[in-house]
Amino acid sequence: MNGATPPPSPPPPVTMRRATADDIPAIVSMLADDPLGARRESPGEPALYRPAFDRIDADPNQHLMVAQRDGRTVGTLQLTIIPGLSRRGSTRALVEAVRIHADARGSGLGGRLIEWAVDEARRRHCTLIQLTSDATRLDAHRFYERLGFEASHVGFKKQL
Amino acid sequence: MNGATPPPSPPPPVTMRRATADDIPAIVSMLADDPLGARRESPGEPALYRPAFDRIDADPNQHLMVAQRDGRTVGTLQLTIIPGLSRRGSTRALVEAVRIHADARGSGLGGRLIEWAVDEARRRHCTLIQLTSDATRLDAHRFYERLGFEASHVGFKKQL
Repeated sequence: MNGATPPPSPPPPVTMRRATADDIPAIVSMLADDPLGARRESPGEPALYRPAFDRIDADPNQHLMVAQRDGRTVGTLQLTIIPGLSRRGSTRALVEAVRIHADARGSGLGGRLIEWAVDEARRRHCTLIQLTSDATRLDAHRFYERLGFEASHVGFKKQL
Repeated sequence: MNGATPPPSPPPPVTMRRATADDIPAIVSMLADDPLGARRESPGEPALYRPAFDRIDADPNQHLMVAQRDGRTVGTLQLTIIPGLSRRGSTRALVEAVRIHADARGSGLGGRLIEWAVDEARRRHCTLIQLTSDATRLDAHRFYERLGFEASHVGFKKQL
């Protein structure tokens, strides 16, 4: 150890806040910047997303969040709180649409977002948090397992 | 073909209706009558489930349903409507807690319940319907694939 070597500077703090309508373009841009999302999204048409934003924003069980660092939006996720009868009347939390900005990947930010979701789910008295990940996203699977999630289920989807 | 053989009588009609608090014991009994549910539920304590029922019932995006045949409750499921930004602002439907009464299994009723969920999701302008099934429920996986669901995702869960 050389006393002249400066310690690494700590990463700038990340803050999570509820998304506003002004965040729609940044969120949609992140949704589109993804091998699967590229085919599904229309980042040049943010107005297309406004009715959906308004439905999310009006629902007290929906929490569409943005992560910010140095004043820039670097991530997003949506947390849904779902009351239920099963498991002795447990409330569960569902995580959807997790995205990290391309410039911020590899910085541990994904872990921060999921830790926020876990903490928020606990704060809202959920006893279970769940998500599905496309079967092709092998890196994501390892990521969720490192964060304590168990790949206990098969996720079925049907387009309508 | 012998003209004296009577045709098989058609199965009695199944009706789906929104659950009321009076349905809690029958629903919990079905949740518990299952290899996984037996460990998780308390069918002798229906009052334990009432606060959860009230939360579900108060949420316009939650649809806790019972299937009835000949005046008996023979099945249940919960449908959650989830607005979202991804997939061009798509709304999705989530199916949870599907159960068929032991006396009614093998009668095609499960298919009827899921078809109801698919139709209701379409009626509510969802473009995707999804569910997860425990990795050990192999019969259920074949059942959902027969109904047009694709096992495209891995379902991750974490107890809180």
